Amino acid sequence: MITGKNYIGNQLSAKGNKSYKTFNPQLNIENDNVFVEATSDEINTTANLAAKAFKEYSKKSGKEKALFLNTIADEIEALGDELLQVYSSESGLPNGRAMGERGRTIGQLRAFANHITEGNWVDASIDTAQPDRQPIPKTDLRKMNVALGPVVVFGASNFPLAFSTAGGDTASALAAGCPVIVKSHPMHAGTGELVASAVIKAAEKTGMPNGVFSNLNSSGIEVGQELVKHPKVKAVGFTGSIKGGRALFDLATKREEPIPVFAEMGSVNPVIMLPNALNNKAADWAKTYAGSITLGSGQFCTNPGLLLGIKGEGLTTFANVLSEEIVKIEPSCMLHPNIYGSYENNKATALEQSEVNILADYNSDVESNYARQTVSKVKGATFLENPTLHNEVFGPFSMLVECENEAQLEEVINNLEGQLTGTIIADEDELINSSNIVDALQNRVGRIIFNGVPTGVEVCPSMLHGGPYPASSDSRFTAVGVDSIKRWVRPFSFQSWPNELLPDELKNENPLGISRLVNGNKSVNKI
Amino acid sequence: MITGKNYIGNQLSAKGNKSYKTFNPQLNIENDNVFVEATSDEINTTANLAAKAFKEYSKKSGKEKALFLNTIADEIEALGDELLQVYSSESGLPNGRAMGERGRTIGQLRAFANHITEGNWVDASIDTAQPDRQPIPKTDLRKMNVALGPVVVFGASNFPLAFSTAGGDTASALAAGCPVIVKSHPMHAGTGELVASAVIKAAEKTGMPNGVFSNLNSSGIEVGQELVKHPKVKAVGFTGSIKGGRALFDLATKREEPIPVFAEMGSVNPVIMLPNALNNKAADWAKTYAGSITLGSGQFCTNPGLLLGIKGEGLTTFANVLSEEIVKIEPSCMLHPNIYGSYENNKATALEQSEVNILADYNSDVESNYARQTVSKVKGATFLENPTLHNEVFGPFSMLVECENEAQLEEVINNLEGQLTGTIIADEDELINSSNIVDALQNRVGRIIFNGVPTGVEVCPSMLHGGPYPASSDSRFTAVGVDSIKRWVRPFSFQSWPNELLPDELKNENPLGISRLVNGNKSVNKI
Repeated sequence: MITGKNYIGNQLSAKGNKSYKTFNPQLNIENDNVFVEATSDEINTTANLAAKAFKEYSKKSGKEKALFLNTIADEIEALGDELLQVYSSESGLPNGRAMGERGRTIGQLRAFANHITEGNWVDASIDTAQPDRQPIPKTDLRKMNVALGPVVVFGASNFPLAFSTAGGDTASALAAGCPVIVKSHPMHAGTGELVASAVIKAAEKTGMPNGVFSNLNSSGIEVGQELVKHPKVKAVGFTGSIKGGRALFDLATKREEPIPVFAEMGSVNPVIMLPNALNNKAADWAKTYAGSITLGSGQFCTNPGLLLGIKGEGLTTFANVLSEEIVKIEPSCMLHPNIYGSYENNKATALEQSEVNILADYNSDVESNYARQTVSKVKGATFLENPTLHNEVFGPFSMLVECENEAQLEEVINNLEGQLTGTIIADEDELINSSNIVDALQNRVGRIIFNGVPTGVEVCPSMLHGGPYPASSDSRFTAVGVDSIKRWVRPFSFQSWPNELLPDELKNENPLGISRLVNGNKSVNKI
Repeated sequence: MITGKNYIGNQLSAKGNKSYKTFNPQLNIENDNVFVEATSDEINTTANLAAKAFKEYSKKSGKEKALFLNTIADEIEALGDELLQVYSSESGLPNGRAMGERGRTIGQLRAFANHITEGNWVDASIDTAQPDRQPIPKTDLRKMNVALGPVVVFGASNFPLAFSTAGGDTASALAAGCPVIVKSHPMHAGTGELVASAVIKAAEKTGMPNGVFSNLNSSGIEVGQELVKHPKVKAVGFTGSIKGGRALFDLATKREEPIPVFAEMGSVNPVIMLPNALNNKAADWAKTYAGSITLGSGQFCTNPGLLLGIKGEGLTTFANVLSEEIVKIEPSCMLHPNIYGSYENNKATALEQSEVNILADYNSDVESNYARQTVSKVKGATFLENPTLHNEVFGPFSMLVECENEAQLEEVINNLEGQLTGTIIADEDELINSSNIVDALQNRVGRIIFNGVPTGVEVCPSMLHGGPYPASSDSRFTAVGVDSIKRWVRPFSFQSWPNELLPDELKNENPLGISRLVNGNKSVNKI
């Protein structure tokens, strides 16, 4: 069923000479399927086809697009066990995770389908004419969100389904009315092709224009670069490393016509542990965090890579229990030998820095590509002096920073790069009395958590998955939840436009029954 | 009353050696006041003070910020005739325009005050906990918009009040909770200082932190560049030329931490005239457009610089009447000798291009700095071949492009750069039958107008003032209307946060009575 070819709209194409295979990290062998990289010619054809499809697709009603999204979800379900098997063979992730992530992917598609069926997301606003206004008449103005144009989506390595081919970026862009070109992640090319075939089937079944979706293979960076530079491409969604995201951001902003890039990048997700909380519950929190640090081999963007506390008995207990607990956990397989290799290298770099101590290190033998968890410890002053210690070590690694006092803790927080999340472990009274700490943390993160763990990104309207740079390239948007559609739309005004030619969302009759701002007041009524 | 100094928060400061004067283009002489440029030291002090003020100011309630904005409006009114006189002496614009623009500026401030008093703009969203959910519990998540940080605002040359010191960018940023540093426009330094003094008075009267507003002088580009590069600055608002806006955008995106720039830049605001409409009303439209092209010496960003039609009797009549009418209009004074000089140069460049004809040219003698209006004419094929003809000529100039047929007209539209506005002059039946033209135009502009003129930017929620690059640097935002606040805020999530420590907008009790999305449904109720 897997062909190894690119989907240029609904056509399979493999004109290139370069090819590659995916890798099974559990078995430590290459998988059989051969994937053919897209050529410049194919990239150009794809972008032009997407631009052509945009003209038709951007005019589809919410209900039509919702049917498309729901049908994608159905078709992904219909892929059945084959998808789960290929997913696991290309990621080393277990079947339970595959099922969970498939559920999340389908859930996201259906959530966007509901969102655009309901229709309020277009932020319709109407200011009616006042022809007799003095000194000059007021003309009729009506505004709503419209789609930007073709969007390029880069699949993530760590979520082969939910942040990939038909993941959040694709679902939100298609919901907005933008055709999508996926730059398939090379590690999950088979998973990607299967999902792409489901999207293409859904597009055909629901009468969507050819080119509304394409899926291009590539093992290097060139295909992605050419896509981002293509004049017909109008926006980019990316999930991955700071280096990769920044490179695409730089390409996109240097274009003759700069285009928006939403890149969700690295994060160490600092956890601030205040003394009273640790005095009361250090052991409990240590056990909880041993689990959070090692969850999914630490391959979550919200993995807690930095634990910050103030010197004292509570922190010592926490460190001791964490050390005991974390080595009890069985290591698990990482996504790919390259990711495993990077983990070992980045961990070694962190550990070889001056005045860095190892607190706990799983040191039994493990199978190939299995990551050994490690917790290190440094003093606050050391962390402040050495920027290398701020870097993310992607995997089951965390660094405990022991600060001298609250002032130093605040200084450490103020010197952190932007983060997806920040967590505070505290008693409630302690939290009330630590507004300086809270304020400092809030200023550096996109989501703040009280007495919990950062892992686990709920898909719901109140989720913000993003944050100040480099957690994301633009803190004004989110990658998760229905508001992520806002990345792919622009407001557009019609002035004195004939009622019958307006989009339904802006017609006097309000045929869709949506909530609109009419002369400054919210209303679902007709005008 | 004008000191020529910088406002670093509420302190007047003039440590620099460089100074400059403003110019009265009506009298063709320099004005008396001497303005001292800000030094690097002063810029650094200002940015740090703004960052310090941010901590306090970003926590002010909507009502507190609204009182500040309304008091700014009061203080600007209290400047009385002096402001109007300085405005005219620095811009050559008449008293009526000064009064109108002051009214608009005050109106914007009060509109934002109302907007943040009402409070719905924070887009509050609450998803309550489901501790018993299977397979994993759902945590409590609450999201709302929060301020980005200090914003640098570049005053525009063509709106010394409404797009300047306390104009739309400043009003929206202050409303959002962001301190503002104005890089004062050198041509309007006196106007800027007077308005700055009003803002500072208002800040002091309403107990706002020192540094919530600063105003820095500069005659060159260095002060602006240093501000945009300063690590404490978190966003930039700009109104001006493509060259200037792009340079700031490039600086901001190259920073170690890139920051958003909203630049509203050049536009030629194409006007598409379809045959039937011209057959019926060519003379009327020609008279209307003679006025729109010359309004305010053509110094509006929505000035119609490009008139597109299809060869035929109607277009000939339009051209003839426009030629007759436009030379009847008395030329008026431009803002500055440099702007007048640029107008003459850019016009000469346009006119010396191959196959460009002069249709009408005001050729009587005029006073210094008075702009002579000109209309030129080219064929569609010529316009398509020569990108120089696409450039904006800022001033009372327009180019009539005669297309061979509808296909060529569509091609011309598809080849236009992004525009603030596009206008269609058509009969209603004609509009219905020209969906390809309408679609092409809609894809290139931020606002589309039926049977009207692009000049006149109504300040209301349904206005979109922006558009695809280079009309703006990010088509997802507007520079005019209350939605322009969205440029300066980011969504922020609280997870499992104690109710009493949440911002009022997110508390269970809904003490502000705002509209919130609660578990997916809009509600003004408490939880």
